[in-house]
Amino acid sequence: MSMDATETGVVEEAAASFDGTPDARTRQVLQAVTRHLHALVRELRPTQREWEQAVDFLTAVGHACTPTRQEFVLLSDVLGISTLVETINTDPRGTQGTVLGPFHMTESPRRALGDTIDLIGTGTPCVVTGRVTDETGAPVPGASLDVWQCDEHGFYDVQRPDEQPPGNGRGLFTADEHGRFRFRTVVPSHYPIPTDGPVGGLLQAARRHPYRPAHIHLIAEAPGMRPLTTHLFVADSPYIDGDAVFAVKSGLIVEFTEVADPDEARRHGVPSPFRHADFPVRLTREDA
Amino acid sequence: MSMDATETGVVEEAAASFDGTPDARTRQVLQAVTRHLHALVRELRPTQREWEQAVDFLTAVGHACTPTRQEFVLLSDVLGISTLVETINTDPRGTQGTVLGPFHMTESPRRALGDTIDLIGTGTPCVVTGRVTDETGAPVPGASLDVWQCDEHGFYDVQRPDEQPPGNGRGLFTADEHGRFRFRTVVPSHYPIPTDGPVGGLLQAARRHPYRPAHIHLIAEAPGMRPLTTHLFVADSPYIDGDAVFAVKSGLIVEFTEVADPDEARRHGVPSPFRHADFPVRLTREDA
Repeated sequence: MSMDATETGVVEEAAASFDGTPDARTRQVLQAVTRHLHALVRELRPTQREWEQAVDFLTAVGHACTPTRQEFVLLSDVLGISTLVETINTDPRGTQGTVLGPFHMTESPRRALGDTIDLIGTGTPCVVTGRVTDETGAPVPGASLDVWQCDEHGFYDVQRPDEQPPGNGRGLFTADEHGRFRFRTVVPSHYPIPTDGPVGGLLQAARRHPYRPAHIHLIAEAPGMRPLTTHLFVADSPYIDGDAVFAVKSGLIVEFTEVADPDEARRHGVPSPFRHADFPVRLTREDA
Repeated sequence: MSMDATETGVVEEAAASFDGTPDARTRQVLQAVTRHLHALVRELRPTQREWEQAVDFLTAVGHACTPTRQEFVLLSDVLGISTLVETINTDPRGTQGTVLGPFHMTESPRRALGDTIDLIGTGTPCVVTGRVTDETGAPVPGASLDVWQCDEHGFYDVQRPDEQPPGNGRGLFTADEHGRFRFRTVVPSHYPIPTDGPVGGLLQAARRHPYRPAHIHLIAEAPGMRPLTTHLFVADSPYIDGDAVFAVKSGLIVEFTEVADPDEARRHGVPSPFRHADFPVRLTREDA
């Protein structure tokens, strides 16, 4: 009981209230959250009105979350928390991870190697190739590759259900026996994260721009390997050096080279000229 | 750009992204929130799955918020944050403040001194009296007193709209020329905070009970004085030494004395016997 509460007395009492939590990790999380939040509040010394504004902001973020929009992920992104979590979970011997982002919310349609994920046909044609290896460089046959991206106007299918068929820009591929993968698409555009919600208000208050450089999302998985969540970034995209969510890492920037060879285009089943990006994916073992 | 993000590099980059925030307090808040959240995440080292669970939890808290329920206030309460904010904002020369709680969401009906706030009539009759003074003990004439409480079953009007008329248990009073106030009510019950939402799940995971000792909420205001948000706690209530939201302070515990004097009862307009609580309210000047 905070019979005569002091600022440090309250945090000790609140932290101690979780002492009986049976699960050790849950107890650790609840007590760390309590201590860090109290440290934040003691540093900022909010007025009652400011505390109410914080409650209102978090409530608005929650109310902005729908089955096709995740405003708390956006908030985590613009504070650099999502990138930090990926950094913590990246094995330095494999491909660098980066943020999941808020648009991995529908199941990607299963597609065959070489298929296109572009169901519209108006963007710059593009071929993405790559090879999945382990940390020694040995191929990982049959690795699964879940890819998703926006269209040439910067929108994901779930954002424009009237203009894009479901599954546009998405595909779930299985690498071949040499770990190789290949799919057709269009070059994605840079785009603003959604700014019409409370996180947009936060960026506006801070005079921060909302743009992300063009990228293709990818989750690579294989039995016994650590799952990898990352992006390929388009090297010549605007905002490549100023991502609103701090997700760009040097190893993830890929040249989308223009290829003007009609034979090559025919071989890939795309018009000429097209762009070609090659992205090696290096996974690491779960127990490594 | 987190070109080769390190854990501390990400926090510096994210904090620096707020350097251009025009409003100095907003800048301070955003940078402190960023630094403390990063420190929490670096300490806990969450997996991607744990981060998703945190996002899901906050989303569920947001979705549980309605015009008559504030789950983020509940979350702040059970973590001791609300009590900390009140402790920070309490002037030690006045009456101790305590949490606002989630039920101050409708306007209290204006009532005359001596009126009842109980519109049901089935609880233990009670008279509350008091006197509003400044920090020197001089009366504060015309101070406003906004009071709200649950009924004898532990429910606020907004929680049981089918059983309680709106405004039951609520009243907005104006102290007389001597700073005195007086109203009739019923003795409130101890009660559990709502446990059917995500905060209830958190308490359950921590094996914490959800009960608050019986109390009457009060906001006292007067021109030139700091507003005071506090409770009167019923001294003999269960959970007086184990409030789920850490809000009890010794100076706020009040004896609800039984009075069996029919003349006294008649004078107050209540049946005999009744309970009587006297609560002196000491405000402090804005500039003090």
